[in-house]
Amino acid sequence: MTTLEAIKNRTSYRGIFEDTAVPREDLRKIMEAGLAAPSGCNTQTTSLIAVDEPQLLRRLNEVTELETPATATAMICVLAQKLIAYRDRSFYVQDYSAAIQNMLLAIVELGYQSCWYEGQITDEDKIGRKMADILGVPEEYELVCFLPVGIAAESLNYAVKMPFEQRAWFNGFGAKS
Amino acid sequence: MTTLEAIKNRTSYRGIFEDTAVPREDLRKIMEAGLAAPSGCNTQTTSLIAVDEPQLLRRLNEVTELETPATATAMICVLAQKLIAYRDRSFYVQDYSAAIQNMLLAIVELGYQSCWYEGQITDEDKIGRKMADILGVPEEYELVCFLPVGIAAESLNYAVKMPFEQRAWFNGFGAKS
Repeated sequence: MTTLEAIKNRTSYRGIFEDTAVPREDLRKIMEAGLAAPSGCNTQTTSLIAVDEPQLLRRLNEVTELETPATATAMICVLAQKLIAYRDRSFYVQDYSAAIQNMLLAIVELGYQSCWYEGQITDEDKIGRKMADILGVPEEYELVCFLPVGIAAESLNYAVKMPFEQRAWFNGFGAKS
Repeated sequence: MTTLEAIKNRTSYRGIFEDTAVPREDLRKIMEAGLAAPSGCNTQTTSLIAVDEPQLLRRLNEVTELETPATATAMICVLAQKLIAYRDRSFYVQDYSAAIQNMLLAIVELGYQSCWYEGQITDEDKIGRKMADILGVPEEYELVCFLPVGIAAESLNYAVKMPFEQRAWFNGFGAKS
């Protein structure tokens, strides 16, 4: 699969997963893809924890209370540190977002599906912190997102997007190409 | 090139570019890759402008005052709208970061190089707004980043990153795999 194909094929999969283990080797490749993303001033603010132990997955899924991602046999948790890149500026949100996007593409390339779960665990109920506590994550890291990883058992749906011409132009805003 | 190869090969290229035009077709493919990125609640907060007119490029590069990206024959400007995904939450930074990462990978796949220029144009001097004015971008859009696009004329350098074991683990923070 070329990069452009993986980019086109990727979608937010919210269905049920097959009960098939994801090999450690693949989880490592996915995490390596995440860590290969750029970070502002190379501060490398993103860290990752892959979870494939069934009991640990069960505890995390009890906390998230989300049904379909709980059927995945693996999960990658994304940790962020709000480190300063220069002066008072941190690019940690950009950093972890680029890392997540790399991982989503690697997941597709390796034959799996996933979805970016962030808002669900970073609202006032602080589910991300509960997950972090289960995983022994220190307070200076924020658990900002998790990605279920597994083989899709249901069909894929693609988000309907605005036409290219409404979001992209050449040589000027709203210009005709 | 597979996705994993593109992810590994991508680097922040800050050298001089060859004086070779980037075909419109390639710029369109790169922008399509950007727009294919996910966005929080599918709000599609990211828009793009590709610039390849030499005079327009010159005006933009006068504003950025950056030497090496100014040698690129094309540039993609990233526009962000801080739209609400749900309640009071906007994921626009995540949205444009995922779009940028997709574009950086597409750029590598198509044989070009680039670099994520964000802090340079979003500091107090508001260079991004000056660029936006040149491109006729309405006030409700923020020009948050630009990506030069071109063929590298110099060798690539790769950022030195922390070892995998210091940033990624299985089944617990800092755990040995």
